[in-house]
Amino acid sequence: MEKRRAGTWVGDDNVALLTDLYELTMAASYHRHDLNGTATFDLFIRSLPPQRSFLVVCGVEDAVSYLESLSFDDGALAYLRSLGIFDDDFLDYLSRFSFSGDVVAMREGEIAFGGEPIVRVTAPLIEAQFVETFLLNAITFQTMVASKAARVAIACGDRRFVDFSLRRDHGADAGLKAARAAFVGGAAATSNVLAGRFYGIPLSGTMAHSYVLAFPSELEAFRTYASHFGNDTILLVDTFDIAEGARNAATVAREAKETGMSIRGVRIDSGDLVECAKVVRTILDEAGLPELQIFASGDLDEYEIERLLAAEAPIDAFGVGTQLGTSGDAPALGGAYKLVEDEAGPKMKLSTGKVTLPGRKQVYRRGAMEEDVIALEDEEQEGRPLLEPIVRNGRRIREAPPLEETRAFCRRNLDALPDELRALRSGAPYPVRLSPRLEELVERMRARR
Amino acid sequence: MEKRRAGTWVGDDNVALLTDLYELTMAASYHRHDLNGTATFDLFIRSLPPQRSFLVVCGVEDAVSYLESLSFDDGALAYLRSLGIFDDDFLDYLSRFSFSGDVVAMREGEIAFGGEPIVRVTAPLIEAQFVETFLLNAITFQTMVASKAARVAIACGDRRFVDFSLRRDHGADAGLKAARAAFVGGAAATSNVLAGRFYGIPLSGTMAHSYVLAFPSELEAFRTYASHFGNDTILLVDTFDIAEGARNAATVAREAKETGMSIRGVRIDSGDLVECAKVVRTILDEAGLPELQIFASGDLDEYEIERLLAAEAPIDAFGVGTQLGTSGDAPALGGAYKLVEDEAGPKMKLSTGKVTLPGRKQVYRRGAMEEDVIALEDEEQEGRPLLEPIVRNGRRIREAPPLEETRAFCRRNLDALPDELRALRSGAPYPVRLSPRLEELVERMRARR
Repeated sequence: MEKRRAGTWVGDDNVALLTDLYELTMAASYHRHDLNGTATFDLFIRSLPPQRSFLVVCGVEDAVSYLESLSFDDGALAYLRSLGIFDDDFLDYLSRFSFSGDVVAMREGEIAFGGEPIVRVTAPLIEAQFVETFLLNAITFQTMVASKAARVAIACGDRRFVDFSLRRDHGADAGLKAARAAFVGGAAATSNVLAGRFYGIPLSGTMAHSYVLAFPSELEAFRTYASHFGNDTILLVDTFDIAEGARNAATVAREAKETGMSIRGVRIDSGDLVECAKVVRTILDEAGLPELQIFASGDLDEYEIERLLAAEAPIDAFGVGTQLGTSGDAPALGGAYKLVEDEAGPKMKLSTGKVTLPGRKQVYRRGAMEEDVIALEDEEQEGRPLLEPIVRNGRRIREAPPLEETRAFCRRNLDALPDELRALRSGAPYPVRLSPRLEELVERMRARR
Repeated sequence: MEKRRAGTWVGDDNVALLTDLYELTMAASYHRHDLNGTATFDLFIRSLPPQRSFLVVCGVEDAVSYLESLSFDDGALAYLRSLGIFDDDFLDYLSRFSFSGDVVAMREGEIAFGGEPIVRVTAPLIEAQFVETFLLNAITFQTMVASKAARVAIACGDRRFVDFSLRRDHGADAGLKAARAAFVGGAAATSNVLAGRFYGIPLSGTMAHSYVLAFPSELEAFRTYASHFGNDTILLVDTFDIAEGARNAATVAREAKETGMSIRGVRIDSGDLVECAKVVRTILDEAGLPELQIFASGDLDEYEIERLLAAEAPIDAFGVGTQLGTSGDAPALGGAYKLVEDEAGPKMKLSTGKVTLPGRKQVYRRGAMEEDVIALEDEEQEGRPLLEPIVRNGRRIREAPPLEETRAFCRRNLDALPDELRALRSGAPYPVRLSPRLEELVERMRARR
């Protein structure tokens, strides 16, 4: 049995094993019994957390990349053999395994609601089942963060916010994907350099308290930083005393002005942000520096930002970390991936509280977000169909759009949300209806049991 | 500017850029001003979430692997150059960058409390500062999950529990690291195959509802699975009707017995688990199958497991997913990484609510967990010192222990916890005192300002 210790990473070469064991035991059983007819699975979020009125779809492009690259290399096969539960015939099958099916999905940045299929996979049963774990992992996590980011964006109004979550994200991959999802949902930039490199997201950064502490005085720390980074400088003013920090920042900003530079602003990371921001604004204004911006950070979320702006805190931009990257008040979404049709027809699970909708379906959005209708795929309906083909015969049939475009699409969708959905405290849920034929199918399948 | 889209991964080749931009701007400034004397930083969890009485340290080995492998390759340097904020001299420095410092840390599986240094890094200032973001990411996340797992283990008593979190973990790396941290904290196994491969964690799996739905009848699904996996078989009995499911499982178990096999048990994943488990237990017992175990899953956490066992639900083992892997009731820990000493002496930050403890420190545990004392490193104290050397001059000075050993160490630590700390609802906090000389240093530094 292969056994590494710490310092291991998931990548294209080993992600095939990033799956629940049962996906493989079920696959082995299907393979032995030649049960591999075409099957369709829906991925959906069962219901929204109490604090959420809508979701912003994200993670679809990662899921597609996974489907395109999925294969078992010799190391993976050797490990599976070592478990002693898979026979040679199945391992041989896995050595040739790839995803050959079709996928329709909502676009990243699309608004979705509980129960609506976000991704629909149609493939030979073994393939369609096997990809469950990764698809759920990628899409529910990224959708969760994009949805949180959208709420923060709504709270910020015309202010900017920046993703500062990396140090609190759940591991390395979460850091990368949270930055991407946050950008889709509305963040203007990220502190995460690797996310900047991979996704072209603008970077933002200031300084840490330790930087200030590393110099004999705060003033000297500020001068040194400003002399290096000029117009990009944002000075952290709360290491010792915030008013003194603001005065030191004003001194350095005026010195910079004399040499033709214009430092960008100051950051406050602790204390009563309303009070502190007002004190700092007054000091900067009285020093003749109305152009200096105030950045605030420190355990912010959409509720706190709403409160700060309602209290007229003179804050120009927000750094949002922990609560954004972990979606602190709703750190998981109840994603499900369910068999809805196979060669024998529509399928439906009846477990208590976990009923699924049978058949191949499409979601239609009517009017300016009046209601959504989940219908059978071949059932003519009014409205805009939200599920679009993205993979055919295992290959991507359209390139991922530039991330800026996805972000702009999300922004348009958020702007079009009815006021009651934009409210941070959710009220009446958005109406999602079943079409007449889907309703009828559900009833027929219930009665059949 | 390099720009990939979806499907990107973090690995040894690019993890150097998985950092906040400010780590690099501060490094550039220190480099230009030749500020690179020896500095010491503490990594600690500021305070525990309200629902936590203790922490289980985890993630240290990953942090060490990172420190050992840290370097900037040409791709990383080219991206940084493209940002236009770093000069050639600094980029040249980065091309030769590696971590050359010393690290002392608590062992993985150790019990820690708020404010105690878990990791202490001493290195040239630029290196010691730069590693902040990754160390916080790795150690706070993994410590959070190991701590949650320990609580689940306490709730389970002599029952086993298995990590089922992969589909809800925050991305791919979180899935791998959550399985490892859960195992350290007490999980008996994981469903995550890649974690089994990399860390040698035992694997566990059953079947999905879709497997049952893929056959003409539940009975046929059960028969097929049992014929393939024999003694390892665990049948999911709640796809349709739980009593009927249990009777079908009993039928298949009796058939298996006749051929000399003994299937392992059944799983219940929905409904009122107390009620359902009692119904299923009765059916299995009346069928002469007292040896069949009952596994329960479905949004479990330590509180729910405590409730189920208090209600005498006849459940033998638990699958714990979402709440374990996301630490649902406390999805982030307030980890901090702070400069505490440099060549000019001890350092201390005074920001409101975020005071740090100056100087190079050691943590001593007294008696059978009577109290912990945080002391200056060179201050003689009673008790067991918790911080042990792990990296010297940039190289690991002891191999990571086998994971089973770390898990056993954690188990012994949990067994030794006083009852009030083992309680799931926290009461009086464990006493963590400052030593006389540390207390005195804090006072002196406060007065100095």
